[in-house]
Amino acid sequence: MGKVGIIMGSDSDIPVMQGATEMLERLETPFEVSISSAHRTPEGTAEWAEGARERGVEVIIAGAGASAALPGVVAAYTDLPVIGVPLKAWAFDGMDALLSIAQMPPGVPVACVGVNGAKNAALQAARILALNDEDLRERLAEYRGEQAASVHEKNERLQDKGMGDY
Amino acid sequence: MGKVGIIMGSDSDIPVMQGATEMLERLETPFEVSISSAHRTPEGTAEWAEGARERGVEVIIAGAGASAALPGVVAAYTDLPVIGVPLKAWAFDGMDALLSIAQMPPGVPVACVGVNGAKNAALQAARILALNDEDLRERLAEYRGEQAASVHEKNERLQDKGMGDY
Amino acid sequence: MGKVGIIMGSDSDIPVMQGATEMLERLETPFEVSISSAHRTPEGTAEWAEGARERGVEVIIAGAGASAALPGVVAAYTDLPVIGVPLKAWAFDGMDALLSIAQMPPGVPVACVGVNGAKNAALQAARILALNDEDLRERLAEYRGEQAASVHEKNERLQDKGMGDY
Amino acid sequence: MGKVGIIMGSDSDIPVMQGATEMLERLETPFEVSISSAHRTPEGTAEWAEGARERGVEVIIAGAGASAALPGVVAAYTDLPVIGVPLKAWAFDGMDALLSIAQMPPGVPVACVGVNGAKNAALQAARILALNDEDLRERLAEYRGEQAASVHEKNERLQDKGMGDY
Amino acid sequence: MGKVGIIMGSDSDIPVMQGATEMLERLETPFEVSISSAHRTPEGTAEWAEGARERGVEVIIAGAGASAALPGVVAAYTDLPVIGVPLKAWAFDGMDALLSIAQMPPGVPVACVGVNGAKNAALQAARILALNDEDLRERLAEYRGEQAASVHEKNERLQDKGMGDY
Amino acid sequence: MGKVGIIMGSDSDIPVMQGATEMLERLETPFEVSISSAHRTPEGTAEWAEGARERGVEVIIAGAGASAALPGVVAAYTDLPVIGVPLKAWAFDGMDALLSIAQMPPGVPVACVGVNGAKNAALQAARILALNDEDLRERLAEYRGEQAASVHEKNERLQDKGMGDY
Amino acid sequence: MGKVGIIMGSDSDIPVMQGATEMLERLETPFEVSISSAHRTPEGTAEWAEGARERGVEVIIAGAGASAALPGVVAAYTDLPVIGVPLKAWAFDGMDALLSIAQMPPGVPVACVGVNGAKNAALQAARILALNDEDLRERLAEYRGEQAASVHEKNERLQDKGMGDY
Amino acid sequence: MGKVGIIMGSDSDIPVMQGATEMLERLETPFEVSISSAHRTPEGTAEWAEGARERGVEVIIAGAGASAALPGVVAAYTDLPVIGVPLKAWAFDGMDALLSIAQMPPGVPVACVGVNGAKNAALQAARILALNDEDLRERLAEYRGEQAASVHEKNERLQDKGMGDY
Repeated sequence: MGKVGIIMGSDSDIPVMQGATEMLERLETPFEVSISSAHRTPEGTAEWAEGARERGVEVIIAGAGASAALPGVVAAYTDLPVIGVPLKAWAFDGMDALLSIAQMPPGVPVACVGVNGAKNAALQAARILALNDEDLRERLAEYRGEQAASVHEKNERLQDKGMGDY
Repeated sequence: MGKVGIIMGSDSDIPVMQGATEMLERLETPFEVSISSAHRTPEGTAEWAEGARERGVEVIIAGAGASAALPGVVAAYTDLPVIGVPLKAWAFDGMDALLSIAQMPPGVPVACVGVNGAKNAALQAARILALNDEDLRERLAEYRGEQAASVHEKNERLQDKGMGDY
Repeated sequence: MGKVGIIMGSDSDIPVMQGATEMLERLETPFEVSISSAHRTPEGTAEWAEGARERGVEVIIAGAGASAALPGVVAAYTDLPVIGVPLKAWAFDGMDALLSIAQMPPGVPVACVGVNGAKNAALQAARILALNDEDLRERLAEYRGEQAASVHEKNERLQDKGMGDY
Repeated sequence: MGKVGIIMGSDSDIPVMQGATEMLERLETPFEVSISSAHRTPEGTAEWAEGARERGVEVIIAGAGASAALPGVVAAYTDLPVIGVPLKAWAFDGMDALLSIAQMPPGVPVACVGVNGAKNAALQAARILALNDEDLRERLAEYRGEQAASVHEKNERLQDKGMGDY
Repeated sequence: MGKVGIIMGSDSDIPVMQGATEMLERLETPFEVSISSAHRTPEGTAEWAEGARERGVEVIIAGAGASAALPGVVAAYTDLPVIGVPLKAWAFDGMDALLSIAQMPPGVPVACVGVNGAKNAALQAARILALNDEDLRERLAEYRGEQAASVHEKNERLQDKGMGDY
Repeated sequence: MGKVGIIMGSDSDIPVMQGATEMLERLETPFEVSISSAHRTPEGTAEWAEGARERGVEVIIAGAGASAALPGVVAAYTDLPVIGVPLKAWAFDGMDALLSIAQMPPGVPVACVGVNGAKNAALQAARILALNDEDLRERLAEYRGEQAASVHEKNERLQDKGMGDY
Repeated sequence: MGKVGIIMGSDSDIPVMQGATEMLERLETPFEVSISSAHRTPEGTAEWAEGARERGVEVIIAGAGASAALPGVVAAYTDLPVIGVPLKAWAFDGMDALLSIAQMPPGVPVACVGVNGAKNAALQAARILALNDEDLRERLAEYRGEQAASVHEKNERLQDKGMGDY
Repeated sequence: MGKVGIIMGSDSDIPVMQGATEMLERLETPFEVSISSAHRTPEGTAEWAEGARERGVEVIIAGAGASAALPGVVAAYTDLPVIGVPLKAWAFDGMDALLSIAQMPPGVPVACVGVNGAKNAALQAARILALNDEDLRERLAEYRGEQAASVHEKNERLQDKGMGDY
């Protein structure tokens, strides 16, 4: 069974990217995590991407902030699907990273989630892996059910208590 | 073998979304295309999404402009991976659609490509389908090779002719 | 007499949306409040919108952040007037929600107030209901009078005390 | 039966604002139209707004570009519901008008549609008037039906012809 | 000798607008200050503007946030020069107010300073009043001299101490 | 009687800046016009600004696009009031110039009009000069009257002809 | 004597990047030009950058649009100074490229010029090479002189002809 | 051996600009630092720039926020390469400064780093000086090696500890 390959440029990205690993753990989806930088360790990043399939990776999640070249550079060295997570950095609330990741040139695709959207990146990766994994598909369906149930519970609580005492 | 399900809200989206169908044809990847609107035909859209897996769809490409609710609404009714294509509409160069599609709430993933990025959406879909399709993987590799070759050719032409006579 | 139907996607929206319920209470305008998500409970949201008129709702206030599909999805399932409240979420100060809510495609209207503008949404709803309710119209006029009086009082205080000691 | 009062600051706004009058004509909803400027004829605008209810106006549509003070100024002189239409002017694709209209201070509501969204403003006005007008409600329902039918027709044509020959 | 008329929409604007009154006090330039709202007390604001010249006002400073109609409304009721101060409100760092104030329609001028730029508004007003007031001109020149001297002192301190110990 | 000093960085700014000279001619306000660049002829620009008062200039209008340093540089060399006109250049619809001109540091004021707002800059200059010139004040009042009359005429034409035949 | 190495991702960038080559030709500064893509020919780009110094390149100019990873990727493989030129692509007027290029992570520098600013990139490169090339320094000084002379000529023409007949 | 000339408009810029001086110290690159303002001490700034080469400066780093004219003004008075550092000021996260610095008119180059990017400005300056300084080139190479080593260490630690215990 395939796994998710998570890559980020710096250990300062860990707190946000844990949103992805926690979601994958919850969905019992195997993954590997690495720190490698598009700009500080470009050869290492190229090797990571080129070797990903051989290591059993089927989907890549790449988190990056600011200039955010990492997802695109990874997508340049592999044909595996790459999901980019734009991270907030020191300015512009992540808009710089969002544009860098989304606006890839025609021919080299990266699929982008929202700013700091590591959890959704994991869910997108799981939806992809679930194409070949009935059990994962069921876990995804369960998760959706739990999400819906949580909304319903909150609504019931609101009907009980009203806005003021919620 | 799975196919790509393409959905868009209006026939005015066809000229851009042809970037996706032409790419898929080139990669010999089967697809279906539909027009259905998140706001004008919401039940039809919900049915389309709920029935997608049964119709053999494995990856969804949803193109939408402006308020651009379509990709998210589709993702709400299925667990298949959804790729959103933000389309330029009458203002803001597609920024409205880009934010609507990318900034999905945690729990319901949509993966977004660049503005008018239908071609890259098709490539992302093909990368996903290629996880189970060695032949498609080869066609993707060929396509990458052709892209690289085209860059090299252009460079050679530039070396020959120089900037002025290119 | 008609009431206002308030809907929001998450209980985290309550603190802002209380601006609407408090204003409606002040104007003695009846309302109902629900939590229902465009993406996590899409069928429930569709039912909520389709049944609103029957429940006596005449105006809908829908609060949503980020991708903010809720107001548009509600407007797709009813012909009641829908007022959207774009909420600040984790990035862009609510610009993502503002664009998602305001930039609806021609044919399906949503009227948008400012970011976190729940109080103004309530006032807009009351202006609509007051078309058939002389008493509410008087309460609205009183409220306007109080607002003006408060500005005058502040100005008098300023004339008394000056800028430094205000 | 109440009517819609349409106001705009300049005759250069007519081409866009016709989107509202054509929609209202289609829905057989009576309306009046005036040119009056928040900045060039402020007293006239104040009088227009103060006398609107007496003239039988129940909903106001105010179109304005750039600094776009008109909708807010009108809302300051009446308790009728005001719908603002941000118009594209000479820069920023209407973002200036969108922010001016949407970001009203708490206490004085204006409900904003999308940039150049005159048609949706008319539909929002009709949804409001339909609260007291069963016939209008039916015409709105018909219009919704026609919209949906048009989407279905386009989809059928697409299934027939395919993307290339559409 | 003429004075500066300062107007703001709310007492919450006082902390920023004190930047103007303190600067005017320093320059020994007379001023009056009022709270009056374009939207909550529109008639009062119109009267304030219409009577300004008679009260001896020669330059107007109008501070406003968000929708920020105040400077333009004031300029609509007087031919005195109006300087607008866009104030940060609850979103967008003052960009909404900056666009509302700067993007006035041709024919009704407002001159805008930077976000929260009350001090510069006062200096601009003083530059205008100094056209007829040799003494004020000298005080302005002194102020400029002090500014330059302060920069030189800081530079000398930096040369002495270096970056680390500054 | 004082005059307006107009300065711009390039002859490509003439078409827009003519909005200022035409308005001043209409108001019979004397002016001088110069081309001088903050970056290409910095000494000349400094001299122009330092000598302005001596040449009889009382108000300065400085038009600039993109980086748009000219108004601020001029304001650094004189205590005359400076009105900046942000011009559209090759990108961003003039937002770059608007921010450069408006966001001056505390202590050195520039008052900014809207993008390409040369006409309003002239009116602002005339409002300033009119503080000492009763005749100009009357011409300004006449101009305001004509503006209002033009709006009224357009409105009457609209009442006559309706939207379709306007 | 060192030369400038110009790199761009596509032959569609040639029309803008000619602004750089023409400027370098005028300054008699040697250069080489190549097409190589960060995403389509990543190894070739890495080799180009790694071999630049050996080929005699002393300054690099990298032009890129949209996601615009090229300048940063080049800077990752060399210690030569890299100047990035953000190019307008299919959306956002080059803001995407500007942010991608400017917002490099600490540790890997790229210096960015304005959107489509190829000419200024060439001048910046020449200023760098002129540190070791007295003759080039003189040509740069001449160029500055010509620029200033051109502004003066335009000003004289304006003084002669006035605004209308310029 | 040449040195770096650092200039900033205010002592409030020191905390960010220390990122440059610390980096230069680490690279054993000589520098001078000055405070001088484009708007408050324009003559002093012009003199600083004109005398820079004579003082042995070979590269200039100019930090400025908001209107951020300093780098451009300096570039107008010298032919040395100027690197601009846009600083965050009181609004817009530094976007105002970024645009002011990057969008220089053709003919007068400034190379811009990211918002608050003083460290990268120093590295860019060092890359320039290293063209004539083999030792500096080696120190730059060492620094790159250390950066890469630090990424590798972090990655090893992550492989050891996992995301949760990192």
